[in-house]
Amino acid sequence: MLIEHLSIIGVGLIGGSLARALRKAKLVNRITGCNRNENTLKKAIELDIIDDYSLNIKDAVIGADVVVIGTPLSTTEKIFPQIVASLKPSAVLTDVGSAKGSVVITAQKVMGDNFSSFVPGHPIAGTEQSGVEASFAELFVDHRVILTPLDVTDASAHKLITKMWQVVGANVINLDVKHHDDVLAATSHLPHMLAYALVDCLAGMQEREDIFKYAAGGFADFTRIASSNPEMWHDICFSNRDALLNSLELFSAHINSIKGAIENSDSEHLLSIFKRAKQVRDQFTKSRNQSE
Amino acid sequence: MLIEHLSIIGVGLIGGSLARALRKAKLVNRITGCNRNENTLKKAIELDIIDDYSLNIKDAVIGADVVVIGTPLSTTEKIFPQIVASLKPSAVLTDVGSAKGSVVITAQKVMGDNFSSFVPGHPIAGTEQSGVEASFAELFVDHRVILTPLDVTDASAHKLITKMWQVVGANVINLDVKHHDDVLAATSHLPHMLAYALVDCLAGMQEREDIFKYAAGGFADFTRIASSNPEMWHDICFSNRDALLNSLELFSAHINSIKGAIENSDSEHLLSIFKRAKQVRDQFTKSRNQSE
Repeated sequence: MLIEHLSIIGVGLIGGSLARALRKAKLVNRITGCNRNENTLKKAIELDIIDDYSLNIKDAVIGADVVVIGTPLSTTEKIFPQIVASLKPSAVLTDVGSAKGSVVITAQKVMGDNFSSFVPGHPIAGTEQSGVEASFAELFVDHRVILTPLDVTDASAHKLITKMWQVVGANVINLDVKHHDDVLAATSHLPHMLAYALVDCLAGMQEREDIFKYAAGGFADFTRIASSNPEMWHDICFSNRDALLNSLELFSAHINSIKGAIENSDSEHLLSIFKRAKQVRDQFTKSRNQSE
Repeated sequence: MLIEHLSIIGVGLIGGSLARALRKAKLVNRITGCNRNENTLKKAIELDIIDDYSLNIKDAVIGADVVVIGTPLSTTEKIFPQIVASLKPSAVLTDVGSAKGSVVITAQKVMGDNFSSFVPGHPIAGTEQSGVEASFAELFVDHRVILTPLDVTDASAHKLITKMWQVVGANVINLDVKHHDDVLAATSHLPHMLAYALVDCLAGMQEREDIFKYAAGGFADFTRIASSNPEMWHDICFSNRDALLNSLELFSAHINSIKGAIENSDSEHLLSIFKRAKQVRDQFTKSRNQSE
């Protein structure tokens, strides 16, 4: 048994999928769930995702060997202080938040000496769906999970969480906290802002009806992520504020550069941007195909 | 026989696919190709896409009943004057350009009284591939083709081009020229700019290598269109200049609004943008699924 007793705080798409996968692999003996909404927990029992539950966070982690925090980032500051006193000394704590700097700061502040048993994590998996009903055991197969352990992080805790993700099919990678946040701001958080901004922009246009009527496949692909959970993305924006603002700033400069080239009929400059982007994107496709 | 003799100027993805589809449907007797590059034409003969070819545009349209201009938008101004004198009086002319206002102005200027036989068209189909080798007969099946006939456009010419696209599987729609250009600027040209700008922006970042390494599926979808043909998109930018600049301006305002909300910790405003966008995008998905 890899984990005797697992507690999952926030039984949603990520927490639910992890529970399903570990249970399927028969690597966990008991799973306790905790959620704001009792109906979600009842549903999770019904779907055989968890064994038992508590609506009280303090109770939900008692006796747990591993605690996974799967709640939105904005709840982190509230959740850490509540669980710390209830954790058993050998418990290992991890999370699944899309930004790591802010979570690490909170954990350091609240956990004190026990901070070494916290392994910050971020599975790069998900769909534009959310909730326990959308969870499935194969969500993490061939997906990356980034862990951002610190110098003080306990080696055996780090090893256990690495193993936990590996057994559900993920490729585990370790990154520095700030590096993680910068990379994710660019590759995930920024594109989400663009998709949300684009859809909101088009929805406000006079031609709104025809815009969505005549949109082709490329548009559907491009805007799919604008269907993502608004609350979750709201939290990510504030949790990874500085890196995201920096990315937005850089992106705006690039858009202005394209705009300027069109305004000034600067063919050469415009073409050089498009060519460079195509080359990089084609290379990205090639690397992806090779690694598949 | 729907078309006795078809001439295709520019035998690429669109021209080649149209030729393949009409030939497959046995609705064309003879197809003459014309292209800058003779190797492309030889390839098209080899693939049995065209029957004969000419490197000279004037010769390529002699005797043709229908002429399809499938070359990049920037060539329109050069091509129209060259073919006009060679067209037989009953010939119907159409094009496949992604912007219509600039093409219509050129055609009006050059064709004079014969302008009525020009039916401006725009098939909303394509892949990020280009070239005759990428062409296939099914490209237009269940895709929209927008025609933008004017008051003076000959009704029988309009009917013939409508039929030509319908027999290859397309849904033909008629739009006003300016409305077409505004809608396409928003739904297609703007997203392409964003994808090019994003990839170029990320490629210039310090973390470039890890950004592309840790990018997930959403990123791949979001940036796929940055692999599109740079020359073609360069031409579209200048052919639909005003509408595109207007869209870029509006989009920038929305990005600044998101940026401002993050900077000012305006949770409510940020959440309202995301929620509105999600609602519209979900509705779009629903409409698409219903129409499929």
